[in-house]
Amino acid sequence: MSIKKGDYVLLLSEDGKTYLLEVKEERFHTHKDCVFLGDLIGKDYGEVITGKNNRRFYVLRPTLHDFLIKVDRLTQIIYPKDIGYILLKLGVGPGKTVLECGCGSGALTTAFAYMVGDSGKVISYEKEERFLKLAQKNISRLNLSDRVEFKLREVKDAFDESEVDAVFLDVKEPWILVKPAWNALKAGAPIGILVPTTNQISLTLKELFTTGFAQVEVVEILLRKYKTNPERIRPEDRMVAHTGFLIFAKKVKNERSSDTG
Amino acid sequence: MSIKKGDYVLLLSEDGKTYLLEVKEERFHTHKDCVFLGDLIGKDYGEVITGKNNRRFYVLRPTLHDFLIKVDRLTQIIYPKDIGYILLKLGVGPGKTVLECGCGSGALTTAFAYMVGDSGKVISYEKEERFLKLAQKNISRLNLSDRVEFKLREVKDAFDESEVDAVFLDVKEPWILVKPAWNALKAGAPIGILVPTTNQISLTLKELFTTGFAQVEVVEILLRKYKTNPERIRPEDRMVAHTGFLIFAKKVKNERSSDTG
Amino acid sequence: MSIKKGDYVLLLSEDGKTYLLEVKEERFHTHKDCVFLGDLIGKDYGEVITGKNNRRFYVLRPTLHDFLIKVDRLTQIIYPKDIGYILLKLGVGPGKTVLECGCGSGALTTAFAYMVGDSGKVISYEKEERFLKLAQKNISRLNLSDRVEFKLREVKDAFDESEVDAVFLDVKEPWILVKPAWNALKAGAPIGILVPTTNQISLTLKELFTTGFAQVEVVEILLRKYKTNPERIRPEDRMVAHTGFLIFAKKVKNERSSDTG
Amino acid sequence: MSIKKGDYVLLLSEDGKTYLLEVKEERFHTHKDCVFLGDLIGKDYGEVITGKNNRRFYVLRPTLHDFLIKVDRLTQIIYPKDIGYILLKLGVGPGKTVLECGCGSGALTTAFAYMVGDSGKVISYEKEERFLKLAQKNISRLNLSDRVEFKLREVKDAFDESEVDAVFLDVKEPWILVKPAWNALKAGAPIGILVPTTNQISLTLKELFTTGFAQVEVVEILLRKYKTNPERIRPEDRMVAHTGFLIFAKKVKNERSSDTG
Repeated sequence: MSIKKGDYVLLLSEDGKTYLLEVKEERFHTHKDCVFLGDLIGKDYGEVITGKNNRRFYVLRPTLHDFLIKVDRLTQIIYPKDIGYILLKLGVGPGKTVLECGCGSGALTTAFAYMVGDSGKVISYEKEERFLKLAQKNISRLNLSDRVEFKLREVKDAFDESEVDAVFLDVKEPWILVKPAWNALKAGAPIGILVPTTNQISLTLKELFTTGFAQVEVVEILLRKYKTNPERIRPEDRMVAHTGFLIFAKKVKNERSSDTG
Repeated sequence: MSIKKGDYVLLLSEDGKTYLLEVKEERFHTHKDCVFLGDLIGKDYGEVITGKNNRRFYVLRPTLHDFLIKVDRLTQIIYPKDIGYILLKLGVGPGKTVLECGCGSGALTTAFAYMVGDSGKVISYEKEERFLKLAQKNISRLNLSDRVEFKLREVKDAFDESEVDAVFLDVKEPWILVKPAWNALKAGAPIGILVPTTNQISLTLKELFTTGFAQVEVVEILLRKYKTNPERIRPEDRMVAHTGFLIFAKKVKNERSSDTG
Repeated sequence: MSIKKGDYVLLLSEDGKTYLLEVKEERFHTHKDCVFLGDLIGKDYGEVITGKNNRRFYVLRPTLHDFLIKVDRLTQIIYPKDIGYILLKLGVGPGKTVLECGCGSGALTTAFAYMVGDSGKVISYEKEERFLKLAQKNISRLNLSDRVEFKLREVKDAFDESEVDAVFLDVKEPWILVKPAWNALKAGAPIGILVPTTNQISLTLKELFTTGFAQVEVVEILLRKYKTNPERIRPEDRMVAHTGFLIFAKKVKNERSSDTG
Repeated sequence: MSIKKGDYVLLLSEDGKTYLLEVKEERFHTHKDCVFLGDLIGKDYGEVITGKNNRRFYVLRPTLHDFLIKVDRLTQIIYPKDIGYILLKLGVGPGKTVLECGCGSGALTTAFAYMVGDSGKVISYEKEERFLKLAQKNISRLNLSDRVEFKLREVKDAFDESEVDAVFLDVKEPWILVKPAWNALKAGAPIGILVPTTNQISLTLKELFTTGFAQVEVVEILLRKYKTNPERIRPEDRMVAHTGFLIFAKKVKNERSSDTG
């Protein structure tokens, strides 16, 4: 189980900085030191390596959380605090089929792909090619590319899919996609939506209620980090105060439309 | 894909209450009405059924989140806001082997079992038989019992396992189990710990630092719900202010012990 | 400095409940015991009295905070966490003249009256007589009635006052009163506004920007209580999650209106 | 009521920055422009002045909040969110006598001095001369120096005062000063204490309980700012996550000491 070329490692410096790196025959430079990554091959995770300037680095095994936090990014990413909750609310696990619209830098896409396993599938619509390419690159680091089908397209009226297990929307005007999402979902299945502003919450809720969704929930999640000196336990001085509001609901039969349909 | 006997449904009443129920030939009574659950057989999720007193209920598809929130409980449960984050920090997904100590009512155990898939495994130590039985019952609702091995035992010195992908501790004195956890973990792999008080954070951190763990993080996660009237967006009046602090770290080579070993 | 008839005391029971009471020749009944308040006369604050059933009560000196929390109430009150911040933002202290519209149960009015001292003044507009009466009663407990002028009236176009040091609005549609407030304020002086919903924030901000206000700030304040067992430091389980959003700004010359005026 | 030499003004730039300045015959340079402060003399608050580079500045009237936020600082200051609550819990208003130990940069001292009025008094102990001098300078800006008596001294056993209305401690080891504070306070009167860590909460609580204090409360206060675009209401991205924990209690008769005394 020792480290091989092509594996990813998380280097932790003495001053607490972390670096997610692919192992290859190259040097890696921090501000203060330099390590030759090829030296890691054959070592075990958890060991210490020493840079040219004698600084020590722990060689850690990256978990899903590290990959999510360290995605290359062109956009505001969805944070792990939110991603974890989204997984549970949407029930995204082995074997599920999930549709998302707006992949951004691919953090959430990565988590979906990780959790659906080999028997599941992620479909991801994105209108901007540079975001799509970036998300693909980020996902390839975990060798999960086979589980994701990207579609470079702006959706206005309909998704191609039907009977999916869950839908997630991360676009500027999600209310436009509520009806298409309803059509793509299995009966009774969940939708999740991320919006940064309360004005968007209002518009989205109105559309959810009229389209045929129930068990509507709006939440925000705050993560507060603590310093780790056992003699001086206290929260860190500053924190991320806002990333977005999360809206969840489940598809129900639309009684109005069924009158006419 | 219509509802069958033995399936679970989530009934949502007009006043917003939800009930997680197994479908069988029985009546279910709320304070105000009564529905015959056998009537659900053959119906589709998302439909509406009407009780004897003409109250209407949506028949929703329960997601993992619903099962977690609705576990039968004898203890304070770990909440979804925390469970989601734990999954990411520990990298618990398809194929992983996870060890937990202290299953409580089994909410976290359920989530672990759900995510590891058919190829993964959960080992759960619990010293109180009534908690263990309850956790087993809760997990059986999702047909995940095969993925969990329970061990009725108070651990003091050692777990039976080695080379597990992740460990989670939810016990009163987790510092006692830090060394056994270190021994059970793969090199570089993550541990998670839940404690309700800051005094416990101090004691746990000291043990983590001396045993051989790095990338130590202490966090708390707050979930704030909003009312869903689009014309009056505002947080709910009250919220859960505290469930517990989460501590995470990764196993590294213990340099002191390796001197003598 | 011992306790006299007519003074207010705060009784603290062994199980942590507090009671704000006027000292007179009467009995006071809790669920579990009964004390004769006349016995307090001549005692000192900080002493212990014993009820008929042998329960002990501390006799504490009520501070402004106790009076605010214990106002008789017909409405949601403004909480001390918000009141304290309002005082500083509006600069309400000795000698100031403050105008408020919407006194509710009078908690904020009480704090204003306390802080302006004998040389200051509070003007309070309220359209509902029962609120006005209640606020008057609450303020009389601290002997501050002389400092407050109540006006039973719904304001639509104008306040009677001009050149006041600060204005505070706690009404359903504060945007209607932004222009009247501007007219009542001294040049450069501050306004504070409380609204429970984000929809109201939007409407209020628009009016502030067009009327002639600058240094606009919107905040919310959260108070989290901790349990007081030194061996088990942790936040309380639940907390007040929302009371209202606070909006502050300062009057500036309105350049548009001055073009035409 | 126009602006005079020696007055303080708050300049607000177009990009939202604020500057607290004394009006005198001098230039003031921002990164991008320069204004001659002497030009403000005779102007009214709320007007606009234009810099040499044509940038516009609002001339605002500073409130107590502005003075507190803009104190010159050598230390972490106590924030307005906390100061406001402290005022209410300690009942600091016109005519009161307040004792503080540890003035830091003088933000809380300034608020105390502002609120006690001409008939009240603040006594402030500080062991470091440079902090004391700085606090004096900050307080002089509001012409409140006469209300504060500074004492350059490290207190270990006793304060000089007795029968004070309230005490506030902002020192590293406040538990050492709990007994001296008890002796200085009026019967039944309140104490407030600020500590940054939970370890300090534990030690302080133990001392409060054994010395003779009741109605003990531990809280933390969080202030969250919102962006002010009416079409995009949302919290700001980042916030101050921690300044300190506040502990409050009231002096009661110490039954143990009274046995022997």
